[in-house]
Amino acid sequence: MAVNLKPPHADALHPIAGVQLGIARAGIRKANRKDLLLIALDEGARVAGVFTRNRFCAAPVEVARDHLQLGDGVRALVVNTGNANAGTGEPGLRAARATCDEAARLLGVPAHRVLPFSTGVIMEPLPVERIAAGLPACIADLKADNWLSAAEAIMTTDTVAKAASRRVRLGSTDVTLTGIAKGAGMIHPDMATMLCFVATDAAIAAAPLRAALAHAAEQSFNSITVDGDTSTNDAFMFIATGRAGNREIASEHDAHFASLRDALTDLAAELAQAIIRDGEGATKFITVRVEQGASRAECRQVAFAIAHSPLVKTAFFASDPNLGRILAAIGYAGVADLDVTRLQLFLDDVRVASAGARDPSYQEADGQRVMQQSEITVRVVLGRGSAAATVWTCDLSHEYVTINAEYRT
Amino acid sequence: MAVNLKPPHADALHPIAGVQLGIARAGIRKANRKDLLLIALDEGARVAGVFTRNRFCAAPVEVARDHLQLGDGVRALVVNTGNANAGTGEPGLRAARATCDEAARLLGVPAHRVLPFSTGVIMEPLPVERIAAGLPACIADLKADNWLSAAEAIMTTDTVAKAASRRVRLGSTDVTLTGIAKGAGMIHPDMATMLCFVATDAAIAAAPLRAALAHAAEQSFNSITVDGDTSTNDAFMFIATGRAGNREIASEHDAHFASLRDALTDLAAELAQAIIRDGEGATKFITVRVEQGASRAECRQVAFAIAHSPLVKTAFFASDPNLGRILAAIGYAGVADLDVTRLQLFLDDVRVASAGARDPSYQEADGQRVMQQSEITVRVVLGRGSAAATVWTCDLSHEYVTINAEYRT
Repeated sequence: MAVNLKPPHADALHPIAGVQLGIARAGIRKANRKDLLLIALDEGARVAGVFTRNRFCAAPVEVARDHLQLGDGVRALVVNTGNANAGTGEPGLRAARATCDEAARLLGVPAHRVLPFSTGVIMEPLPVERIAAGLPACIADLKADNWLSAAEAIMTTDTVAKAASRRVRLGSTDVTLTGIAKGAGMIHPDMATMLCFVATDAAIAAAPLRAALAHAAEQSFNSITVDGDTSTNDAFMFIATGRAGNREIASEHDAHFASLRDALTDLAAELAQAIIRDGEGATKFITVRVEQGASRAECRQVAFAIAHSPLVKTAFFASDPNLGRILAAIGYAGVADLDVTRLQLFLDDVRVASAGARDPSYQEADGQRVMQQSEITVRVVLGRGSAAATVWTCDLSHEYVTINAEYRT
Repeated sequence: MAVNLKPPHADALHPIAGVQLGIARAGIRKANRKDLLLIALDEGARVAGVFTRNRFCAAPVEVARDHLQLGDGVRALVVNTGNANAGTGEPGLRAARATCDEAARLLGVPAHRVLPFSTGVIMEPLPVERIAAGLPACIADLKADNWLSAAEAIMTTDTVAKAASRRVRLGSTDVTLTGIAKGAGMIHPDMATMLCFVATDAAIAAAPLRAALAHAAEQSFNSITVDGDTSTNDAFMFIATGRAGNREIASEHDAHFASLRDALTDLAAELAQAIIRDGEGATKFITVRVEQGASRAECRQVAFAIAHSPLVKTAFFASDPNLGRILAAIGYAGVADLDVTRLQLFLDDVRVASAGARDPSYQEADGQRVMQQSEITVRVVLGRGSAAATVWTCDLSHEYVTINAEYRT
């Protein structure tokens, strides 16, 4: 029941020179489903990553972070579904390292140049032997034109594969970005595992690569929930192979930096929104836009208070223009000196509240009309300044409860 | 489907000398249901209150706060259900004042000695004329032995009336406390209206009265959710008539202060827990206890992260010992330097996690056994210090979604 979301066409996903992908059915948790992905990179690729800040971060996150910090250049990423290898203590770390060892052995590269990623159930031992047994099939399958299959291989409770490409001209050179993502798409993805891998053939130095990634993460995955970055396994990786032939982007001040950063941000936002559209039990896609705040931080605070309220979410599910619930969420968002008499609230184009109360022109029928839509924008005008922020969320439905009550059964 | 909660017996609710209660069926939102309560106080009663901190606080909250601050001694409290008079702007304030005016006129007291309280739908104009028409019936009904009926009159989506009494000996004098509460009992009561009125015949000065109330609020209603005090209408009022004949408690250092404060706290905790037991759609009553924290604040932070997680709540609904969800909530609670290897997690008496992973002795069957119970204690031992905190919550069920999707229909 994803909201206005279709799987991408394979031919819309452009290969990236220097990147090959191979998948396998390793039977990690269930038989006969794609559950193992190997992304192999040619020598010379640069990789940056942002990871969960959860104190209970998963073993593969610790190992991937360690390996990245060694700075020796990544040659492979191994991603399994079915098991998150989180909350597994010291044995979990050994299992993540064993995964790297095995991939490294098969590829003939050092183990610290392999990064592990896992998603699935928590606190179960990772079946390393099944991953090891599946890796040769991944290697046999390696090809550049394999992004759709890769997107399918990292799905867990996702119902639609998530992948997209962008092309952007840097001077006289076209560069390409292609990415895949998965999100268990919890309504609070507080502990959903969100994984995203984007590769580009652009040539870009390490510092601007990291800067572009940080910017894109803030405007995409960190705008789908306040705790989007705090799952045990979340990771967003940006790979640049440098094969496009553009003059290398040396710094954030390079004239081409903004073009590449914005293409990455746009691609990441599409994938982040896809996670919400495919949110567990989602029937509505909600954009919450907060404007005229004193700071971006307070705009996000208000937007997330609305986006997290189970009462607001159930009202959307019911197509009920229950404005009081939205106003109450704004009121408890923690903006201490908020003057509610300066506030305006809109549902799409309909002004529903102003001066601390229902707008005199508001008709319930107008609110009702907007609430029936599958895509709704809630716009809050704070009247305090010039900052703004946008977050995306979905409604809270019976299906959400069903999915999460039955996840392990 | 309240969890282990029965309505109180009328004869277990002791009258408080100096307090009379009267109810009416005023047809405020629905015909023929108790929806209006008048609490009349003899001259000389002292009243303290704590109110919502929501910036969108309701008109009656503003008026009640103003009237209390005048310090002239409260003579009556008027409580209506069916309409919250919140998000109603200037007309809402006029309506709340008009309610006081009418009660004051009928009782022959100044209007600023009457406090208004409202609960129900938000952003609808308060039908003052129906309240005015109902007040004479309240006055005709005034009696000391009317607490159960009063508890029934303030119910909204509550399924069980909530009231309790305590007796405590202060020196040679027995004093009595009786209280009623209502809670729409949202799983996050972020904007549930929680109302609680407790009266005692004890003699106590204004400052220790307020101190006792603040202490009790923290240990009861502010421990059922992090935003329990941020609804638009929440109020917790403590009335002392001074008629018991005890030597007046002059300050917090008075030997009798702690006895009265603890009796109030105990009574308030029972009523707060009753709100959770009657939580919308609740099938389980969950106590979250966090121990060995560096501060009470961080213990509450961790406890609320667990208590607010929709994933944890749905796992309880499913009786699924999905420990990873609890560990992930602890991990993202925001305790930056948390060392997960020192942490222990218990479900009742079963140690399920230690040293950052599943406890070696843990058997899924043991977790399963505890999860089947209707009352469960989640105990987290942080291993960082000696502070502790307890919060109470319930599970997230299909019934919750149904109730909140259909509330206005």
